[in-house]
Amino acid sequence: MTFQHSSAVSVVGLGPMGAALAETFLGKGISVTVWNRTPGKADTLVAKGAHLAATVDEAMAASPFTIACINDYPTMYRVLDGAQGGLRGRTLVNLNSGTPSEARAMADWAAEQGLDYLDGAIMVPPTLVGGPGSVFLYSGPQDLFARHRATLAELGDPRFLGADPGLAVLYNTALLHFMYAHMNGFLHAAAMVGSAGVPAAEFAELALGWFAPVVLDPAGLASQAPSLDDGAYPGELGTMVMNLNALEHIARASAEQGVNTAWPTLMQELAERVIAQGHGEDNYFSMFEAFKRP
Amino acid sequence: MTFQHSSAVSVVGLGPMGAALAETFLGKGISVTVWNRTPGKADTLVAKGAHLAATVDEAMAASPFTIACINDYPTMYRVLDGAQGGLRGRTLVNLNSGTPSEARAMADWAAEQGLDYLDGAIMVPPTLVGGPGSVFLYSGPQDLFARHRATLAELGDPRFLGADPGLAVLYNTALLHFMYAHMNGFLHAAAMVGSAGVPAAEFAELALGWFAPVVLDPAGLASQAPSLDDGAYPGELGTMVMNLNALEHIARASAEQGVNTAWPTLMQELAERVIAQGHGEDNYFSMFEAFKRP
Ligand SMILES: [Ca+2]
Ligand SMILES: [Ca+2]
Repeated sequence: MTFQHSSAVSVVGLGPMGAALAETFLGKGISVTVWNRTPGKADTLVAKGAHLAATVDEAMAASPFTIACINDYPTMYRVLDGAQGGLRGRTLVNLNSGTPSEARAMADWAAEQGLDYLDGAIMVPPTLVGGPGSVFLYSGPQDLFARHRATLAELGDPRFLGADPGLAVLYNTALLHFMYAHMNGFLHAAAMVGSAGVPAAEFAELALGWFAPVVLDPAGLASQAPSLDDGAYPGELGTMVMNLNALEHIARASAEQGVNTAWPTLMQELAERVIAQGHGEDNYFSMFEAFKRP
Repeated sequence: MTFQHSSAVSVVGLGPMGAALAETFLGKGISVTVWNRTPGKADTLVAKGAHLAATVDEAMAASPFTIACINDYPTMYRVLDGAQGGLRGRTLVNLNSGTPSEARAMADWAAEQGLDYLDGAIMVPPTLVGGPGSVFLYSGPQDLFARHRATLAELGDPRFLGADPGLAVLYNTALLHFMYAHMNGFLHAAAMVGSAGVPAAEFAELALGWFAPVVLDPAGLASQAPSLDDGAYPGELGTMVMNLNALEHIARASAEQGVNTAWPTLMQELAERVIAQGHGEDNYFSMFEAFKRP
């Protein structure tokens, strides 16, 4: 078996992201068949050479595999229910968002239909699809991934995460949480100094111009990540007790300044819980123990 | 008036940070007088040429200004109460941590004593003091800062934030909140994928090796910071409704996988609140409106 570059792909769901996927394939000289519940959304793509399928069946029959970019899993089921010709022998790469259990349930359902199924997640906005730095995550049957890898690589670096079909969505939600934590951290910090009349643009010069690049350097965190797997958190360079002191100052400063206190208070409570579990003299990474549990 | 480099400085409080400050000054050829409640902590510094003061009075009289690096504001008052010779005409640069109102109260108290007072905050760990990338924050009387700026610059880039003596501590707690948000974001994300058996070290390759440098690029956030001051959050590239969908997936995925749900749930609730306030079609930065309010 050779893992050749597919010359054709179908794209189902033509919102901003689906359209970006189809356009990227077209730009790389791949034959693209598209389908959308509202056909008008395909006009621009058809003008660029895409074939418009009249039904989802027709789209899925037109290419070795179909990429779906639909709102969510419930909508995906409704779309596939419209495939009157059956799904047996077709291949679907599902890039919509949701939860790990939704992805696993759809993989089980696909197996019952005889549909080859790969779940995936898109880690970049539509404007960056196909460009350098674009990354796509996939999970499910490894041979299925290998068969379509070359075509999928046109969209971005394809990372295969494992056989559990829930992994792509799980990584996706985990990375999004990291992103929101980072953005919210900046926004809350800007609100704190803003309460004393400091413009966000002025704060950003220090917080994003100096602090983030130097102190939030990803390489620093990466060097400590293996300690999470060991569950060893040596506190030579700083302890949870010292960090709790700082977290208390953050919560009190937020309260004094009249900004939101719910988040700093929660972080303080999680630190107190970890200390109560015996990590007072361990380093800050022992907070991992709090996040691992409900 | 000329703002000459001081040839002498006193350092009060010789924990790991105070010792690093004193050692940095010594290394730059500045005459250093030190004092600590437990005198033994000064031994290494004395061996390197520091003068040991017998009392806090003696330390504060020995140099044009004194830097204090004490645990917290209550302890700082106790130390200064020990200055039997009085504080009038002395200059204190206080680098301990606390809250803005504690800094403002101490500035008021210092004024009553006739003590020239500058409040500051240290933004790097002891090991980085005096090195490239080291930054110190100061707030209080600008002329006092200007007088000692050259000496303070030996510790790290000295940033003057304004006359409100609470600003250094406020910036400090805000930036620390940003740091904890970032670290907690990674730890919670690692807990999410860890629940499916993914080692943190493996997750770190993607999350810190690719995602953080590309997606959490500080320049991206910085370009949008001025919109916070305008209170304008145009949603062309993504709306709060779309972001709430992602936040719901994160909270549900956390619950499904049996990890902590309190934080993702809080972020979802704040997004819902912002949408209820009419920001549904605005972009994610409208979350600023939630953080600005109690
Ligand atoms: Ca998916
Ligand atoms: Ca201070």
